[in-house]
Amino acid sequence: MSAPASKAPLRLGLAGLGTVGIGVVKIVQEHAALIEARTGRPVVITAVSARDRTKNRDADLSGYAWETDPVALARREDVDVFVEVMGGHEGPARDATEAAIATGKDVVSANKALLAHHGQALALAAEAAGRVIRFEAAVAGGIPVIKTLTEGLAGNRMKRVMGVMNGSCNYILTRMQAANLSYETVFEEARQLGYLEADPNLDVGGIDAGHKLALLASIAFGTKVSFGAVELEGIGNVSIDDIRLAEDMGYRIKLLGVAQMTGRGLEQRMTPCLVPASHPLGQLQGGTNMVVLEGDSVGQIVMRGPGAGMGPTASAVMGDVIDLARGLHLPTFGQPAATLADPQPAKSATPAPYYLRMTLLDKPGALAKIATCLGEAGVSIDQMRQYRHEGANAPVLIVTHKASRDDIDHAMGRFAATGVLVGAPVALRIEEV
Amino acid sequence: MSAPASKAPLRLGLAGLGTVGIGVVKIVQEHAALIEARTGRPVVITAVSARDRTKNRDADLSGYAWETDPVALARREDVDVFVEVMGGHEGPARDATEAAIATGKDVVSANKALLAHHGQALALAAEAAGRVIRFEAAVAGGIPVIKTLTEGLAGNRMKRVMGVMNGSCNYILTRMQAANLSYETVFEEARQLGYLEADPNLDVGGIDAGHKLALLASIAFGTKVSFGAVELEGIGNVSIDDIRLAEDMGYRIKLLGVAQMTGRGLEQRMTPCLVPASHPLGQLQGGTNMVVLEGDSVGQIVMRGPGAGMGPTASAVMGDVIDLARGLHLPTFGQPAATLADPQPAKSATPAPYYLRMTLLDKPGALAKIATCLGEAGVSIDQMRQYRHEGANAPVLIVTHKASRDDIDHAMGRFAATGVLVGAPVALRIEEV
Repeated sequence: MSAPASKAPLRLGLAGLGTVGIGVVKIVQEHAALIEARTGRPVVITAVSARDRTKNRDADLSGYAWETDPVALARREDVDVFVEVMGGHEGPARDATEAAIATGKDVVSANKALLAHHGQALALAAEAAGRVIRFEAAVAGGIPVIKTLTEGLAGNRMKRVMGVMNGSCNYILTRMQAANLSYETVFEEARQLGYLEADPNLDVGGIDAGHKLALLASIAFGTKVSFGAVELEGIGNVSIDDIRLAEDMGYRIKLLGVAQMTGRGLEQRMTPCLVPASHPLGQLQGGTNMVVLEGDSVGQIVMRGPGAGMGPTASAVMGDVIDLARGLHLPTFGQPAATLADPQPAKSATPAPYYLRMTLLDKPGALAKIATCLGEAGVSIDQMRQYRHEGANAPVLIVTHKASRDDIDHAMGRFAATGVLVGAPVALRIEEV
Repeated sequence: MSAPASKAPLRLGLAGLGTVGIGVVKIVQEHAALIEARTGRPVVITAVSARDRTKNRDADLSGYAWETDPVALARREDVDVFVEVMGGHEGPARDATEAAIATGKDVVSANKALLAHHGQALALAAEAAGRVIRFEAAVAGGIPVIKTLTEGLAGNRMKRVMGVMNGSCNYILTRMQAANLSYETVFEEARQLGYLEADPNLDVGGIDAGHKLALLASIAFGTKVSFGAVELEGIGNVSIDDIRLAEDMGYRIKLLGVAQMTGRGLEQRMTPCLVPASHPLGQLQGGTNMVVLEGDSVGQIVMRGPGAGMGPTASAVMGDVIDLARGLHLPTFGQPAATLADPQPAKSATPAPYYLRMTLLDKPGALAKIATCLGEAGVSIDQMRQYRHEGANAPVLIVTHKASRDDIDHAMGRFAATGVLVGAPVALRIEEV
């Protein structure tokens, strides 16, 4: 082993004193000796910033300089590493991160939105300045997935990366299933329990999870982060009927992110999917996260762990900090940002079976008309069930053979003209895992 | 990011051209451009060694210098990193590793036995020489668990580390359960399929898995590797009856390694245990490995992946090689070997419920005598079942409340004197996961 570059303390400037920030303070204070034994040097906090100094935060902050402005914190001369756990992809978080890089600091960030939107520019700036940005805490909470992908599996050409990375959505879907409740009921429950962001669409619309997927895809495939190219579909249209029907066929519905490099380009989607109930993804309960990493040599690696919370997120932040204390410096996305390729976005090019649920008018020939639309779009049918019903409308479930999303959309476009459809049909991909 | 220390190629000397060695050759050859993009420098093989040069190995080795003696390979001046994938904890593997360190090379090893027996001495030698030894491939095949524990979770005080780390044993146990076959039948099947080591006791006796556990424990708890202190019990006494009875109670039997730091010292055991069928450990099938890492901040992280084979093991070797190419140098066990503590071995100090199965003479008062023995040893009973039977012997199943292994052994010691026992009783820990 090489001795650490310096026995001088590594000095952190901590921006944000919410749950995660206080978690970082606790680890730095309680594990000072442990961390010094592991890194060969002390790791200390010299300064912190947050808006409200008077708030009771259940931690002793008296030894730290206080800045109200995170940009001022980022510029301090007694800070080596700027630790950003504020959140927000514009405003103070962005300004302070840029200021930190401009004044020669390394950055440890838990901010998935900032990196999903500005990761490429920030990485270029950091690399030009000879600094690093690390963001383990931004993806899948306490699971060290960035490190695993960038370092542990670096001998692989990655084939596919998947993940359930929004605990709130997984809570809602598993609770619907377990308690046989509607989406609306469980959504309201989750809101009242404080499980959802102030803007719940960040969670249930798949945006937060989409940010994380875009970051993983960049690292896995050596491409620039392209959040705008992620196909996003939230869980708002998943009904308890879908959950029950999927269960009957041996599947669970998950908000699953998939990034895959294909001959047509980079697929990135964050959508509700059916996965086998017997796969670890299908068995994932509540707020837990899971990532599945598939490489050409290693095959499939599955990692499961807490996706949020004080301890897990602070653990991820400190993993990055300890790497810096040990002198491990890698480019933000695993290779220099200037060498990342422009991804060619491909809309779900990889065919898969699809689950289609719809309600038809109970008229002779209605089902035949739907089947014809599918056939004309080149989609063949694996299973079709019409359920016993009362009244004029018949619930119908179709499982297709493998088809592209384009063909499915094409067929569904034709459904409308048949005049036999009641309401909108639901189409969910059955992901092969 | 810092530029790599040098753009010069990193030159590997590869000792061992079995399955794993050829896997390493393939990755180095097929992913040369990918690896250079990720590390900023070429990674090349300059020389190889194996006993038989004439063997057809399905790889182009023509560009590499050949050494018959791995010690000569380790000493070559055109080698920067000695990659040891031969195996064996004495003889050529040990000699060559020592020679590599003595001549200033870093070492990447897949050799769990060597490190479990001589890890401390080798690490001290390497650190004195300013070199590193890395061994991701020695534990849990393709799962980057060493990196996760040493780096990703380095902000945690680890509480417990568990794992199913011998694929052959897990194959035998899951096959017994799925096909309702005896241990002897499946053992023979596994032997014929080539799933077992030449000395099968390395697998089914828990020795191979015990080596891996001792390495994980050292890293997790900052203690010297102490394989000799691992409580080892193989799977040879697990009967199909045990598997069926455990299943009835919602458990699966796994050869589970557990390392845990307690007030009384370091517990390390590799023994057949009952784990809940609903936990990922209980669901693990066939040759797959799983490790469970529990830290004070992160909570529980579970990693699943292939535990052996050409691709997965070579992937782990190359993860280490790429770290070296990037200039990431950590001490062998995560902190300098000279600072590792002497572990205080504690025999299963942590109490757990136990599963006890025995056969009693069908006489009045037999069960009462057994219950009395347990009571006198301070072990209380949670469940007791006597099964319907024909003939003079009654099968009895007892699940205890939490007890220490010492108390269980104490009670079982008293069973013999009762004169009601037929054969030896079976005691399996029910691990809380």
